[in-house]
Amino acid sequence: MVAMTRVERWERRAEVPLLLLSLAFLVAYAWPVLDPRLDRGWREFFETVSWTVWAAFALDFVVRLGLADDRRDYAVRHWYDVALIAVPMLRPLRLLRLVALLRILDRSAAGSLAGRTLVYVSGAAVASVGLASLAVLQAERDAPDATITSFGDALWWACVTVTTVGYGDYSPVTTQGRVIAVVLMVVGIGVVGSVTASVATAMLARAERERRTSG
Amino acid sequence: MVAMTRVERWERRAEVPLLLLSLAFLVAYAWPVLDPRLDRGWREFFETVSWTVWAAFALDFVVRLGLADDRRDYAVRHWYDVALIAVPMLRPLRLLRLVALLRILDRSAAGSLAGRTLVYVSGAAVASVGLASLAVLQAERDAPDATITSFGDALWWACVTVTTVGYGDYSPVTTQGRVIAVVLMVVGIGVVGSVTASVATAMLARAERERRTSG
Amino acid sequence: MVAMTRVERWERRAEVPLLLLSLAFLVAYAWPVLDPRLDRGWREFFETVSWTVWAAFALDFVVRLGLADDRRDYAVRHWYDVALIAVPMLRPLRLLRLVALLRILDRSAAGSLAGRTLVYVSGAAVASVGLASLAVLQAERDAPDATITSFGDALWWACVTVTTVGYGDYSPVTTQGRVIAVVLMVVGIGVVGSVTASVATAMLARAERERRTSG
Amino acid sequence: MVAMTRVERWERRAEVPLLLLSLAFLVAYAWPVLDPRLDRGWREFFETVSWTVWAAFALDFVVRLGLADDRRDYAVRHWYDVALIAVPMLRPLRLLRLVALLRILDRSAAGSLAGRTLVYVSGAAVASVGLASLAVLQAERDAPDATITSFGDALWWACVTVTTVGYGDYSPVTTQGRVIAVVLMVVGIGVVGSVTASVATAMLARAERERRTSG
Repeated sequence: MVAMTRVERWERRAEVPLLLLSLAFLVAYAWPVLDPRLDRGWREFFETVSWTVWAAFALDFVVRLGLADDRRDYAVRHWYDVALIAVPMLRPLRLLRLVALLRILDRSAAGSLAGRTLVYVSGAAVASVGLASLAVLQAERDAPDATITSFGDALWWACVTVTTVGYGDYSPVTTQGRVIAVVLMVVGIGVVGSVTASVATAMLARAERERRTSG
Repeated sequence: MVAMTRVERWERRAEVPLLLLSLAFLVAYAWPVLDPRLDRGWREFFETVSWTVWAAFALDFVVRLGLADDRRDYAVRHWYDVALIAVPMLRPLRLLRLVALLRILDRSAAGSLAGRTLVYVSGAAVASVGLASLAVLQAERDAPDATITSFGDALWWACVTVTTVGYGDYSPVTTQGRVIAVVLMVVGIGVVGSVTASVATAMLARAERERRTSG
Repeated sequence: MVAMTRVERWERRAEVPLLLLSLAFLVAYAWPVLDPRLDRGWREFFETVSWTVWAAFALDFVVRLGLADDRRDYAVRHWYDVALIAVPMLRPLRLLRLVALLRILDRSAAGSLAGRTLVYVSGAAVASVGLASLAVLQAERDAPDATITSFGDALWWACVTVTTVGYGDYSPVTTQGRVIAVVLMVVGIGVVGSVTASVATAMLARAERERRTSG
Repeated sequence: MVAMTRVERWERRAEVPLLLLSLAFLVAYAWPVLDPRLDRGWREFFETVSWTVWAAFALDFVVRLGLADDRRDYAVRHWYDVALIAVPMLRPLRLLRLVALLRILDRSAAGSLAGRTLVYVSGAAVASVGLASLAVLQAERDAPDATITSFGDALWWACVTVTTVGYGDYSPVTTQGRVIAVVLMVVGIGVVGSVTASVATAMLARAERERRTSG
């Protein structure tokens, strides 16, 4: 309908390569966490991959900034990208980009709004659980008194948390682990809320249809 | 209204027998779990019943496939049935077929959409709690450090989990038990969401009615 | 508008006396639970009050049955009252009648549907928490390994449960206590659902109003 | 549109000074809680600040009462202010006034109703978590058997509670701490409910738009 701007055309073309880079980053991030006895050479290799992905994302952002009409405005509206590049600590958050995979699925998928929301929400929940498991495991593993010391336990803890069940058989004890936990809880509330909203929307739509048919 | 296809006619005629077979399967599955000191003869009898039900379901599917116009398409759309027959591990899931009992109740019951949803949701919640209790008990009973070791405890644990309360006085320690727990939590979120959506739909309908009456 | 039937006229006239009897029952039920060292005389007195209230409710039901046009139909539609009179174990449930107090408040109160729902829900939640605290305390007090042994603890446990937080610092260990807990959890889900539905209804109404004003 | 009454004009003019006083009160309240080894001089200083803020709020209310047309009616409708001034114990609740900051933000912010609700809810949740952490820490710190003994733990406990996850690794043991916890749980239910309602409203609005576009 509307002609695409130059930035939009670049963004669309860069989408798939950046996704693949995110996947590479996922492997480079997850592998050393999952296998703590990895030897030095591999560890350095994954470190290199991780920084290469960072460089590629930085480059991509510089290009987009160069193509934008109003650079200041573009940077402000994409503060998220700026933060991810400026603060290397936040790098794992780049994995959330993988949620964009869902957007690609969504484009090709037909279906009601409620159905599409459920797909998004499930995807985001699964991605968050996986990512939070990795991050919590890394934060907790070497802490004294830590209960979360294997990936299986971390995954179980993340599922118990995102559903807001919260048995308390495992819980983080480090500050970093607790920050990750709070993010996961907020995601959990969002998940519960979206599921509810989807069901409500679907029910209202069906009630509306029934009223029309009978009226 | 529309003429039924041959497959649909078969499905309708086979519904009640398959339900009865599912009930037989429930007994054959639950009894040995509930009575771990059952003697060998009975154990083998229930095993035989369980496989007979499997054979009957497989036969039913073959007949339906034979009656279908487009067999490939039918198999793809009924991947759920295929999986249940191909992977014997998933047999307990066949018990979910009992939820179809609710559909039969629903057909005869009148009532608002919100009311019908509540009936469905309650039925699904009760069925899930019962099934999860059995499955968790079987998975946990012989594990060292297990806290869930009697059916009463398993039932209590399942109720605490499906409502997302999660005291943590009992929680599964085996991988199989935790997988069952996660499924139950997801059901719990769905239950909470559906109850909320039902209340919201009923309230909106009432608000609409009040506005019309007063307007 | 419509002329009241004889039963309805009786029901309306009997409402306040029955409420007062329910209050007397509440005192007679709660006092011995809260003060376990009550001497024998008082204990018997409260027992007598409790059975007198039961007799009054039974009498009321007989009168209503006598006034009804179709007695069989009336008994079926009021199965709840029949159960309460026939099964003395269920007597504490009579306290739920106090929720009728809210209906009286509601009649005089003006306000939106969402607001009225919140009043109802809060009232039901507070009544359920109080009642469940008493019932759980009675069930758990003398059990070995019980953690809920004082009314303060029981009240705290009930609040933690109805909100589905579930710390697990206190949890029932007797079968009777756990049945009460499950009822309270179901109430909790209803409370959460109704709060959500009220907020959603209020928001939708406001969005509608904004659209009309601006449109 | 409508001419403002004298009270309204005063209220609008007093808003910012009272907010600043609330911030001063926040500092005077939080500092001694966070640093229990504060020396006597500072402690007395903060005490003085706290009472000065109380006096300023009392004065503001007297002025508003003086300007009101119907003083009795004004006092009844502002029972909240009366309680806050009459019961010094409730002083920390004055911090909720800081939520008014959100109202100022809201006035300048554009956006959908659902978006604005999310901003409000997030603000109220963050404010409640912070305030509850401080209040619980003060209540629990010196109790025997207390688990919440540092601000970090209190903050973690508050996050776990407001999201209704409830691990139970930390939980209050004093009556005052538990009252604060129950308030926080109620806030938590409200937060979950509002998030859900916002998502539902946004989804319904979008579904409506899609129907119009396609219809």
